[in-house]
Amino acid sequence: MTSDDSWQTVKRVRTYEHVLAQIAERILDGRLNVGDRLPSERDLVTALGVSRSSVREALRILEAMGIVEAHVGSGRDSGSRVSGRPTEALSNLLRLHMALSHFQLADLVEVRIQLERSAAARASAEAHSDDISRLNALIDQMMQPDIEHGTFHELDGEFHVTIARASHNALAADLMQALRDAVRAHMEVAFSRVDDWDGMVKTLSDEHRQIAAAIAAGDGDLAAELVANHIAQFYERTSDAKTLTSRWSYPVPSKIQP
Amino acid sequence: MTSDDSWQTVKRVRTYEHVLAQIAERILDGRLNVGDRLPSERDLVTALGVSRSSVREALRILEAMGIVEAHVGSGRDSGSRVSGRPTEALSNLLRLHMALSHFQLADLVEVRIQLERSAAARASAEAHSDDISRLNALIDQMMQPDIEHGTFHELDGEFHVTIARASHNALAADLMQALRDAVRAHMEVAFSRVDDWDGMVKTLSDEHRQIAAAIAAGDGDLAAELVANHIAQFYERTSDAKTLTSRWSYPVPSKIQP
Repeated sequence: MTSDDSWQTVKRVRTYEHVLAQIAERILDGRLNVGDRLPSERDLVTALGVSRSSVREALRILEAMGIVEAHVGSGRDSGSRVSGRPTEALSNLLRLHMALSHFQLADLVEVRIQLERSAAARASAEAHSDDISRLNALIDQMMQPDIEHGTFHELDGEFHVTIARASHNALAADLMQALRDAVRAHMEVAFSRVDDWDGMVKTLSDEHRQIAAAIAAGDGDLAAELVANHIAQFYERTSDAKTLTSRWSYPVPSKIQP
Repeated sequence: MTSDDSWQTVKRVRTYEHVLAQIAERILDGRLNVGDRLPSERDLVTALGVSRSSVREALRILEAMGIVEAHVGSGRDSGSRVSGRPTEALSNLLRLHMALSHFQLADLVEVRIQLERSAAARASAEAHSDDISRLNALIDQMMQPDIEHGTFHELDGEFHVTIARASHNALAADLMQALRDAVRAHMEVAFSRVDDWDGMVKTLSDEHRQIAAAIAAGDGDLAAELVANHIAQFYERTSDAKTLTSRWSYPVPSKIQP
């Protein structure tokens, strides 16, 4: 039973949260920008009237978020700088929450497919010729005979990230990278399960070639369909999770079969 | 010039990072799950052989990531629990990095449109009748005469989040919520700029009705198109950023005009 005179939980705000809030406010209103140096821990302690450990806790959180970078050392270069490197922070966040089962692998694959569709379509409109050369060079490297699982997986990642960067949407590219990093362990198991490794390399490389060709030709719709099928089929081929497949009904249209 | 005997930068790992890594490892390998209680700070200090401040810094980072929840107080209920609440952490991360210009508003709108398209399409397949009732109730509330900007904005957010939750992709729903939170300040400015408020409420409400109807009818393709147009056109109507519009060429297909 709630009524107008019901008790309200008091949210206890801890000291480091006040420190965090003041730094965040200066970032949000533009007083602090990338490259700016924060006051030293000692100066923050004085300016804010809090303990050194509260300042340090706030700074550690901002470091973990990729917002500031600690410059260890002494003298003029010590202290922290505002940095702005979200990818690792995003990836750590997603990976841990995936492990806590808040996010399912299928959820993640589905979001990744959406982002990759969009990236491939936009890259088709915006990619420069050196982006295309880079994609083709990566495919050549992936087709080296006797390529190892680990090497292939890294080059494969770079192929997809190159498309995302060519689309010039930094958020989509960072999210894609973070989603990929978050499922790295899963992907390694998936690769290790493949029986016909040479056949898999050939199939994936053919698909990569078709995707690169569609982007080079500026055919965004085709590139989007190809990349969506490529990802969905990879998980179908390597995953034993039948439930995954059933969740792909929408994001993987069947009208175009490469 | 690099060669085989070139010096390698030594990455300095600080004590709290070791603590963080050990807790993260237990989450990643499943030894720690949502609801589990972590050892007290004092016990962690003893078990890991580190200072109390290092333990506390690691715990603060995990709290900021929505991974653990501090239970302040003494006795049996003190200490931290594994929680798993990613939304606020994601939103804070995105908002700060947006302020640091790593992400552009246009990037964010584009990613949001992709996620909303996918959510609307999947909700069309999976929504229950009470999801539909909820959507219609929200639309009715948004059409109350003399509704204030702030109230409308909140109900509007709830409408979109209801669609996302009905799609049963927790990651997509959390990302959408975080993206929305990250641009809250921008949206408030956008709403305040609207000259013909009643006209805007009518237009948005008509669009909401069409989206809800498409979802209720199970027409995923139509729902996806409608929601994409709805979002893109809102930004077009309220934003003075012409550059935004030019970036929507792909995600907002023109073939269906609601």
